[in-house]
Amino acid sequence: MDLWANLDDLRRRQSEKWRHYPADVLPVFVAEMDSTLAEPVRAALASALDNSDTGYAHPEGLPEAFAGFAGRRWGWDPQPATMTLMPDVARAARTAIELVSEPGDAVVINPPVYPPFYEWLEMTGRRLVSNPLRPGPDGWRLDLEGLEAAFAGGARVHLLCNPQNPTGTVHTRAELDAVAELAERYDVRVVSDEIHAPLTLGDARFTPFLSLDRPAARTGFAAVSASKAWNLAGLKAALLVGGDEVVGEFRRIPEDATSSTGLFGVVASIAALNEGEAWLDELRAALEVNRRWLEEALAPLGIGYRPPDATFLAWLDFRGLGLGDEPAAALLDRGRVALYRGLDFGPEGAGFARFNFATRPEVLAEAVARIAAAL
Amino acid sequence: MDLWANLDDLRRRQSEKWRHYPADVLPVFVAEMDSTLAEPVRAALASALDNSDTGYAHPEGLPEAFAGFAGRRWGWDPQPATMTLMPDVARAARTAIELVSEPGDAVVINPPVYPPFYEWLEMTGRRLVSNPLRPGPDGWRLDLEGLEAAFAGGARVHLLCNPQNPTGTVHTRAELDAVAELAERYDVRVVSDEIHAPLTLGDARFTPFLSLDRPAARTGFAAVSASKAWNLAGLKAALLVGGDEVVGEFRRIPEDATSSTGLFGVVASIAALNEGEAWLDELRAALEVNRRWLEEALAPLGIGYRPPDATFLAWLDFRGLGLGDEPAAALLDRGRVALYRGLDFGPEGAGFARFNFATRPEVLAEAVARIAAAL
Repeated sequence: MDLWANLDDLRRRQSEKWRHYPADVLPVFVAEMDSTLAEPVRAALASALDNSDTGYAHPEGLPEAFAGFAGRRWGWDPQPATMTLMPDVARAARTAIELVSEPGDAVVINPPVYPPFYEWLEMTGRRLVSNPLRPGPDGWRLDLEGLEAAFAGGARVHLLCNPQNPTGTVHTRAELDAVAELAERYDVRVVSDEIHAPLTLGDARFTPFLSLDRPAARTGFAAVSASKAWNLAGLKAALLVGGDEVVGEFRRIPEDATSSTGLFGVVASIAALNEGEAWLDELRAALEVNRRWLEEALAPLGIGYRPPDATFLAWLDFRGLGLGDEPAAALLDRGRVALYRGLDFGPEGAGFARFNFATRPEVLAEAVARIAAAL
Repeated sequence: MDLWANLDDLRRRQSEKWRHYPADVLPVFVAEMDSTLAEPVRAALASALDNSDTGYAHPEGLPEAFAGFAGRRWGWDPQPATMTLMPDVARAARTAIELVSEPGDAVVINPPVYPPFYEWLEMTGRRLVSNPLRPGPDGWRLDLEGLEAAFAGGARVHLLCNPQNPTGTVHTRAELDAVAELAERYDVRVVSDEIHAPLTLGDARFTPFLSLDRPAARTGFAAVSASKAWNLAGLKAALLVGGDEVVGEFRRIPEDATSSTGLFGVVASIAALNEGEAWLDELRAALEVNRRWLEEALAPLGIGYRPPDATFLAWLDFRGLGLGDEPAAALLDRGRVALYRGLDFGPEGAGFARFNFATRPEVLAEAVARIAAAL
């Protein structure tokens, strides 16, 4: 089967990407891929469907599958005993924040960042402390001096995003070591959203935060899932992984977290992690083609673009093109192409928009043509 | 296809019911059915799978499907504009409680009641006020005098369960009218968990709380889902339905509620509600056979049993049989049959256990034989 679905089939999908906007809009906003399912995932779901296996989720097999994948991919061997089933990384991150801090406590984030981060802090009643990424020749990097100031100011938690959404930055081992050292010095707990970790591109190397040989890793948390890399967001399964010293805190997690998880998500994720690496590498090769093609396509338009080191997301810079602080609005209105609004990622997103390039080359070209037409 | 799956296929399921206990235990605890999927549901899911339609959930079609079902089944015409997509009734009920009350506020429940009710109040920081059901010749009924005292004591919310879990009581229209009248007098908001509503048995008639022509219905909420009646708990879709006067409050619901929902749950629920009524009636006829068979099977054992008016759950009274306050423990230990522990439903559950009879007659007989052996 083709890796990428064709437009007729995509238009028949009932998912958010294909239903949010009217049919004349080409959607490249939300982080769903236009891929077809990996064959092992499809087979596992077909088998569950055939057996009418649609009751409550049970975690059996998923922690072990993630541990196996992490070991093969990153040389990291997390223990299944430190993992708890979650419906998604949103719930996993909120749960971790609630385990290690109290309402009113300060949580540091690094904008521009995935819009739900703001909602999670609001839902948990935490105070947002902004430590923006710093743009430079190596892309958007952590501002470690600013981070130290934020930690010194009394922050309790650092909600990290690695690989970073929307910029595609993969934090280096040295950067993560520096974060850990600061967290230890200022008694800050690190919660790392690593949902895009399998989607490194080119020669980028992902480092799991909890794999660091540091005290901050042993008291940290990672929110992980197969949902981005295998396009399973609607099936609802993820894991909250704790460092070796946090297992005791897991006992305080409500049972509701497990019963909120999707059984088909568990089934699909186990198949993806255990048997989906060949498909994953095929996907990464196709994403590599797209991220390179975008360089040539966007430069003549005057749109700023740095190929991401991971994810299938491009953080496009429209400043100077006369589209104002929220270029996605004009692109939707004039080009009938839907990007994710930049300001939703924080004030640092003024003049930017997020573009999802996980689609077949013809559709990608059409999306860029619509952007060009709107300019 | 047979309505009930066979035991070999059931043992291969990955769901909570079939994985929580070792393989020598017969599970009749959690509220999953041992049914096979309704054909329209299976077809809809197969089509979504075939199209790799596994991205984020979008509500399109589900509110209209529920409205159509409610109109045909109960003569109730809720407006799609007053419905919001939710992953499950747990999230729907918690959301409603959070919309209409503050942490520390008192919420009235009617135990014995579905154990997660206690967890929901703990998660939302609400204060539990217990107004137990009163057992009598007509089954477990609401204690309206006690309810008035609880409301007069300053309760803000009444978290109702109708049809009631675990007793199977279907509250009458007169009882619900009385609840509404009290709620209006004491300014209490009603949140009604109606997940079992399609599963009335015999000549029982379900009355949707919001269908009452009363002010308390217009400011009330119902948590509804196709998940119990069509056995879709692991696919994660439900609706929070608001009375006509609460639409404005819906704007305060976090977007996270929708993104936590399962797309396959939406797809399956639409098919179930639009095309699954013939299957539902076949299921109800089979459940009718089981609930009647249990009368004959349990009486000689000295186990108290009142056939439920709805649900596939039996609230069994083991008091006087020498099994102590938590008979499920001895039944599991000595009979290798897993019922739901009575005390999890509140102190009123001492000496009781919940029994799930949604299974094929042979399995039902085996479960009762194991209970008999344990006595």
